[in-house]
Amino acid sequence: MSSGLAHRGESVGPGTDEGLAAELLRHLRSTYGPAVVESYPGSAASYSLPGEVGLFARRCTNPVLVARAAGVGPKLQLAQMLGKHDGVGTDLVARCVNELLVEGALPLFFLSHLAAGDIEMGRVLEVVRGIAEGCRQADCALLASETSRLPGSHEPGRFELTGFAVGMVERARRLDGRARTCPGDVVLGLASTGLHASGFPLVRKLFFDAQRMRAEQAIPELGGTLGEELLRPSRIYVRSVRAALERYRVKGVVHALACIGDGGLLGDLPRVLGRRCVARIERSAWPRPPIFGLVQGLGNLDDAEMFRVFNMGIGMVAVVAPFYADAAARRMAREGDRVSVIGEIVQGDGPAVELV
Amino acid sequence: MSSGLAHRGESVGPGTDEGLAAELLRHLRSTYGPAVVESYPGSAASYSLPGEVGLFARRCTNPVLVARAAGVGPKLQLAQMLGKHDGVGTDLVARCVNELLVEGALPLFFLSHLAAGDIEMGRVLEVVRGIAEGCRQADCALLASETSRLPGSHEPGRFELTGFAVGMVERARRLDGRARTCPGDVVLGLASTGLHASGFPLVRKLFFDAQRMRAEQAIPELGGTLGEELLRPSRIYVRSVRAALERYRVKGVVHALACIGDGGLLGDLPRVLGRRCVARIERSAWPRPPIFGLVQGLGNLDDAEMFRVFNMGIGMVAVVAPFYADAAARRMAREGDRVSVIGEIVQGDGPAVELV
Repeated sequence: MSSGLAHRGESVGPGTDEGLAAELLRHLRSTYGPAVVESYPGSAASYSLPGEVGLFARRCTNPVLVARAAGVGPKLQLAQMLGKHDGVGTDLVARCVNELLVEGALPLFFLSHLAAGDIEMGRVLEVVRGIAEGCRQADCALLASETSRLPGSHEPGRFELTGFAVGMVERARRLDGRARTCPGDVVLGLASTGLHASGFPLVRKLFFDAQRMRAEQAIPELGGTLGEELLRPSRIYVRSVRAALERYRVKGVVHALACIGDGGLLGDLPRVLGRRCVARIERSAWPRPPIFGLVQGLGNLDDAEMFRVFNMGIGMVAVVAPFYADAAARRMAREGDRVSVIGEIVQGDGPAVELV
Repeated sequence: MSSGLAHRGESVGPGTDEGLAAELLRHLRSTYGPAVVESYPGSAASYSLPGEVGLFARRCTNPVLVARAAGVGPKLQLAQMLGKHDGVGTDLVARCVNELLVEGALPLFFLSHLAAGDIEMGRVLEVVRGIAEGCRQADCALLASETSRLPGSHEPGRFELTGFAVGMVERARRLDGRARTCPGDVVLGLASTGLHASGFPLVRKLFFDAQRMRAEQAIPELGGTLGEELLRPSRIYVRSVRAALERYRVKGVVHALACIGDGGLLGDLPRVLGRRCVARIERSAWPRPPIFGLVQGLGNLDDAEMFRVFNMGIGMVAVVAPFYADAAARRMAREGDRVSVIGEIVQGDGPAVELV
């Protein structure tokens, strides 16, 4: 049971060990910058705005806070089934912060909440380590990582994980792709690390229920085991996107960003496009990670189905002004992302995506 | 499964009904003020700071954001057992926003996340209605209310509920009772509505496991049924606390606030007191709701045990300068809270609470 007496991120109760609690706090502190403000132990966590506002080249005069709450989804169930929990924390952060980017907001801080029946502190730490890793990648502070133990609430080994990210954007710089995208724009795709956290009900059915495969099974075309491939943490795009937004702040080169999640390119890209905009996506324009071919073959699915459920190798899309497209792509690539020109915006009955 | 295509607060998938989704959005909008900014459907929710800062008499120059994530805890299990879900949403809000007050912060916005296996939309709406009710009581915006359906993740009828609140306080006005409380201060207690969300594992054991009582059983000393008493929503103290903080902004009359939750007065009050401060609490100073006597009798517990697990009728404590104590109490009472002088701060080996 969570307690008001708990240290931030520390769980009080049977099984809590001082050393483990200290390790937990160490994970949290690995994400702290000068904006984090000390609070009462166990109370709400605090974050001072002016320090962070300085991250932008100038002060934010009309700051808009952007917030997102999410769970990991069915990938968490698979992780629990396979007993491997270090990556799902990073997935949790990715599910939240990548969505903030869509608004043009950069993450400030993150909180997580884990609810379990009876759970070992070691497992909680494994999860929190992944969350802290994600927060460092996202340059945001993990202010608190609460654990609630409710005996009998979950099956042994099962837990529920929820994350919450808050970011900020100057009001005039909020991205509204519906107003900004226009025919001629170039569609850049930033590579995913694989499935991220989407399509898992289908994946589980295909690999484990139908094919009775095992997680530790090595699959040559994946270059590793099935479990490693499926549970690889999601990519976090904060640094690339920030680099592109800050480099071209005045020119407004980035017209829209779309996080490719549970809707795939076909579902998640149209929602940031204007009404006359059709994104013509060239399927062969980027290398498709082998996991998608494997899933497609096993499930006997056509491309349209695949593009509606999976990211197909593209985790984030940036729609940019054509003149600066190459430069923006290079800028993002310098932050470690693989960036491809995957299509263009053409005039049509939009918002829509057309696969060619 | 939650989807990137979902409207804020709307769940897409089998069982989603347009009318129900519209009702959900209506609940959210019932909490909106001018600070809420329209976003892409389904994307992160946005909140414009300057509008809200105006709620305070002057502009915040060094705003500190204070955040809190929490679940309802074991009270949720009881609500699920009894099939009554309208109040737990308000409990969820209370668990988060009352903790923000402890820092002197006033809530800006709230997000909720519900994870379930298979859940009827009607039940989700019942929960969200309670959350929206809590947010209106707390004068904060319910920016998003996400629902994740993960088939097989929870038993039928079971769900997990997590809430996130973000508040703000001017940096110089953050409350740190450890530095501000001093001998001679008066301890004011704001009445709880009953158990709030604490002590439920014990309550459940006593009433339902040991005594085999039924929720619909009328209990004369409670003036209603057992279920009504146990599931009554928690009190939200935002308006009273704001009134006191704003009325005495310059004089700094409020030295500390403590939210009495899972630690009881004995656990939750000391953490906001200075090292030389002992809160001498007079047990007979306020009317103790009959539920506590009932629990105490059934469990054969002494007062010290009770005060460590239950709020005993006091949900929020304000430690105030003696000269203004009566006026502050009256100011808070005008907002609808029952306020009692429950003790004083004496010099001693603190921080500690002494029951007399």
